[in-house]
Amino acid sequence: MKRIFPLSKVYGLLEPGSVVMVTTTRKGKSNIMTMSWHTMMEFEPPTVGCVISNGNYSFEILKSTKECVINIPTLELAEKAVARGNTSGRRVDKFKALGLTPEPASIVAAPLIAECYANLECRVMDARLVAKYNFFILEVLKAWIDPAIKNPRTIHLRGRGAFMVAGETIKLPSKMK
Amino acid sequence: MKRIFPLSKVYGLLEPGSVVMVTTTRKGKSNIMTMSWHTMMEFEPPTVGCVISNGNYSFEILKSTKECVINIPTLELAEKAVARGNTSGRRVDKFKALGLTPEPASIVAAPLIAECYANLECRVMDARLVAKYNFFILEVLKAWIDPAIKNPRTIHLRGRGAFMVAGETIKLPSKMK
Repeated sequence: MKRIFPLSKVYGLLEPGSVVMVTTTRKGKSNIMTMSWHTMMEFEPPTVGCVISNGNYSFEILKSTKECVINIPTLELAEKAVARGNTSGRRVDKFKALGLTPEPASIVAAPLIAECYANLECRVMDARLVAKYNFFILEVLKAWIDPAIKNPRTIHLRGRGAFMVAGETIKLPSKMK
Repeated sequence: MKRIFPLSKVYGLLEPGSVVMVTTTRKGKSNIMTMSWHTMMEFEPPTVGCVISNGNYSFEILKSTKECVINIPTLELAEKAVARGNTSGRRVDKFKALGLTPEPASIVAAPLIAECYANLECRVMDARLVAKYNFFILEVLKAWIDPAIKNPRTIHLRGRGAFMVAGETIKLPSKMK
């Protein structure tokens, strides 16, 4: 069961740099895209920069609706997460094709992926680098988490079909936030 | 011994999303800053977006010299990597303070950190988001790697002193580059 997660802590979910699944929706049709090129840009309000290639169906929807959900998968979903690319959301229903469950978000129209351990409802706040770099700047409006997952085994792209799986978590004396 | 690494493969080094150490230099004085907020933006030429807070000494140097090196540390360097924040490069020589070895780069003035398994010589290619977001867009001009490190145990920020250490690498059937 998902709980609301404080916006002030969202950075800790994205800083590890894992693969995420972006959901968008338009005219009642939802799409899923897997993405690895993203970074935090501000703590609060949580601000995320990300590259979504203009060849993707999700690019068109995000550009027009200005809303999406960033869903964070763990190892169990790895094969589904990286299966994208074989088909385009233009032609198939990605939720059905991947066997994933859409759940209504509370602020945006795009759905949450129920099977992902965390979900971030986002709105485009700055699109000035979209034309040149396909780079969207998003504000996270609401965050959800499965509180049972303490040490998420996120997956991290290494290129050419290789993925690193999150290992142990350690504590270090640091002033880094 | 470091070898030149092909620019066309640089994305695979940064996509996992690990903590990196950024070196800069000005008037013969070098600085080291640890950074976690970065993302690939283009495959070739390899383009990296990153946030460097304007409170950091490195921000000033990068803004004026437009050059830096992104150095990727592994677990052995974790304590040194995150120790920054206790002191500023304005006051101390970070290389001496951390016991790290500067090596000359081939294109930029900023030094490589010898102890890091990979080093990316970078130049600022777009600074238009610096004023609003402290966001620099860098082009990687030259890359170096220690070819002995096949499965780097990179470290990944999780917030509030917690760091995830890179686990196993798996192969998955994927068209993701």
